[in-house]
Amino acid sequence: MSEASVTRRYQFAAAHRLHSDHLSEEDNWRIYGKCNNPNGHGHNYVLYVTVTGSIRPDTGVVTDMEALDRVVHETVVARFDHQDLNRDRAFAEKTTTGENLVQLIWDLLKERIPAGRLQKVGIVETRDNYFEYAESS
Amino acid sequence: MSEASVTRRYQFAAAHRLHSDHLSEEDNWRIYGKCNNPNGHGHNYVLYVTVTGSIRPDTGVVTDMEALDRVVHETVVARFDHQDLNRDRAFAEKTTTGENLVQLIWDLLKERIPAGRLQKVGIVETRDNYFEYAESS
Amino acid sequence: MSEASVTRRYQFAAAHRLHSDHLSEEDNWRIYGKCNNPNGHGHNYVLYVTVTGSIRPDTGVVTDMEALDRVVHETVVARFDHQDLNRDRAFAEKTTTGENLVQLIWDLLKERIPAGRLQKVGIVETRDNYFEYAESS
Amino acid sequence: MSEASVTRRYQFAAAHRLHSDHLSEEDNWRIYGKCNNPNGHGHNYVLYVTVTGSIRPDTGVVTDMEALDRVVHETVVARFDHQDLNRDRAFAEKTTTGENLVQLIWDLLKERIPAGRLQKVGIVETRDNYFEYAESS
Amino acid sequence: MSEASVTRRYQFAAAHRLHSDHLSEEDNWRIYGKCNNPNGHGHNYVLYVTVTGSIRPDTGVVTDMEALDRVVHETVVARFDHQDLNRDRAFAEKTTTGENLVQLIWDLLKERIPAGRLQKVGIVETRDNYFEYAESS
Amino acid sequence: MSEASVTRRYQFAAAHRLHSDHLSEEDNWRIYGKCNNPNGHGHNYVLYVTVTGSIRPDTGVVTDMEALDRVVHETVVARFDHQDLNRDRAFAEKTTTGENLVQLIWDLLKERIPAGRLQKVGIVETRDNYFEYAESS
Repeated sequence: MSEASVTRRYQFAAAHRLHSDHLSEEDNWRIYGKCNNPNGHGHNYVLYVTVTGSIRPDTGVVTDMEALDRVVHETVVARFDHQDLNRDRAFAEKTTTGENLVQLIWDLLKERIPAGRLQKVGIVETRDNYFEYAESS
Repeated sequence: MSEASVTRRYQFAAAHRLHSDHLSEEDNWRIYGKCNNPNGHGHNYVLYVTVTGSIRPDTGVVTDMEALDRVVHETVVARFDHQDLNRDRAFAEKTTTGENLVQLIWDLLKERIPAGRLQKVGIVETRDNYFEYAESS
Repeated sequence: MSEASVTRRYQFAAAHRLHSDHLSEEDNWRIYGKCNNPNGHGHNYVLYVTVTGSIRPDTGVVTDMEALDRVVHETVVARFDHQDLNRDRAFAEKTTTGENLVQLIWDLLKERIPAGRLQKVGIVETRDNYFEYAESS
Repeated sequence: MSEASVTRRYQFAAAHRLHSDHLSEEDNWRIYGKCNNPNGHGHNYVLYVTVTGSIRPDTGVVTDMEALDRVVHETVVARFDHQDLNRDRAFAEKTTTGENLVQLIWDLLKERIPAGRLQKVGIVETRDNYFEYAESS
Repeated sequence: MSEASVTRRYQFAAAHRLHSDHLSEEDNWRIYGKCNNPNGHGHNYVLYVTVTGSIRPDTGVVTDMEALDRVVHETVVARFDHQDLNRDRAFAEKTTTGENLVQLIWDLLKERIPAGRLQKVGIVETRDNYFEYAESS
Repeated sequence: MSEASVTRRYQFAAAHRLHSDHLSEEDNWRIYGKCNNPNGHGHNYVLYVTVTGSIRPDTGVVTDMEALDRVVHETVVARFDHQDLNRDRAFAEKTTTGENLVQLIWDLLKERIPAGRLQKVGIVETRDNYFEYAESS
């Protein structure tokens, strides 16, 4: 059977602030710049979820898209949309960087894909920033 | 002399929360929905500033674009970028809706346009939301 | 009170075919080109609805956005999404051109805006085609 | 010699309906949802064709772009643009899903690339849906 | 009869340099900045042409779109695409600013619209710059 | 440690002309088409730089983004923005094709990435053209 991939786009708006308790105040500022401003800021996050697998001969699809949407909404969108990422329990010990966010979303989704396998998770944070976590990367 | 218009695009990322002290808790939730979530959220705001005027015969421009950029950066972008809008003094008594934001930016810019006149101010808040304040509107 | 406008974006996917019973076969082809192909084709229509009005001092909004979304979904999106426009009763006697479509949507919405007034209705049919019906146009 | 890739974008507007004769009416509805509506709907399909190969030292290109465009127009765009995909002979026995469509386009193009090799074929069906068929996938 | 508008998008890639012989070297640099660099640079110009008029009851259109495309291609796109704007005869005495360009295109098109009337001409020069020349502006 | 990737977007506007001294006038025209027009033309080039590496546990980032931006601006953007690519020393013997451009930018950047490794370099030349040079391609 042939393999193809399908990518679905989702979005959520959230507040965050880049700050690490493991770093000095100076290092926080040097590394995160204005993203370290104490009152926080926010973004319209765009999320791309890519699933790869065999094209099922009877249905012609790789995965059940409505089931995939349900999983992503319950697991990711409902959790982060219109929230402050820094208050999420997963970020109690970690900074809300794009890199940590795509890895977290990968971990939240990888065992819950209806059919096929999770190939990559991408996040657009601003129009000039894109983060990705991929299979075997 | 002929008139033309020039529109410049700017952006800033900010946190905010829709909440009015003039409304009950129930009304806040009914009117602003999830935008009323207590911890706030955020957006990548895209700002459009349109200036109209005569095309100057010697230079072929309507306004001095570097001066316009400087005004918008000092007056708007530096004030809101990577900040929490709800803590801005202009929103001490007002809700940070898109409508109030475009009106505020109009008021901040209208007397400071280098040449020509301010014709409209637009804000994209999310990919499906656009607010505008225009001359004589 | 100051006036501002808010534009909301919606979308629907639909099939259609440009064909007029008032025209000869040759004229249908000459005027509508490949859009007259007998089996039809389709588009991802993007719909922009703009409402103008006073900014309400208590809420800071021009119109109730959730109510507006409900009206547009019930009146326009649910009617056209994943349908064949040529089978819609409104197009029994009219061609499904972008011009007729924006006028029809204007007529469907103009009396049902929750607050403020309908200022314009726009449709993107393909990435190079945009149609608009506006107040007093 | 170094290898690079070039991606060209094309588009076509088409009608389609998701329906499989191998499935019950209930399963068709459960799997394809509103895409199973009997009268069909349509999309502006955006097609990405990626060719990889050595950069030719004399010309600085990987493939002859005008020849590639000609092949894609003759083989894919002319076949599907302003047509109903469900009436295409390739879909007599198959559903017009994005997955089947990218695989079909891959098969139509893979032996006809002027220079270099076909690396991937992608289709944007709606603004939130992307399908891809790739080398060795 | 009701009025609607249709906007068509076109594009051309061209080189140019902002420089006025009426200005000193210092003023050229102060006003045009890096756009005054002697070797020139270039853009992918995106052109929007908007035509307004009555919706014809028999055809449902405002203007003959194929005729409009032909006029714009012959008059504007063929003249500027893959050329150096500074060598165009219309810019022998004028600077190739966005303002002068939209006015020139307006003058080239206004008497040649197949039906309806030219309402506005817009040019996107870079992703943050938009110029417009409109009816009665 | 887990690996993720970050992609940053940059842009520069430049003039160029496709022409090879190794080819006859006829071959230049046949291969490059209107891009061979003697007076040159130009584009808004969009540049994507992707860096892959371990997510640092203390900072949550793959690379120092401000340092990366500084490197790309000094090495690529400042060199090409508002210039004529054909006059760049790197193109004294080579044609300014997208393929040669991504390879050149790869060579300019690969040893200067602050942390992590350069994974790919992409260039959008026009809205329908994308070129890429990648690790191990």
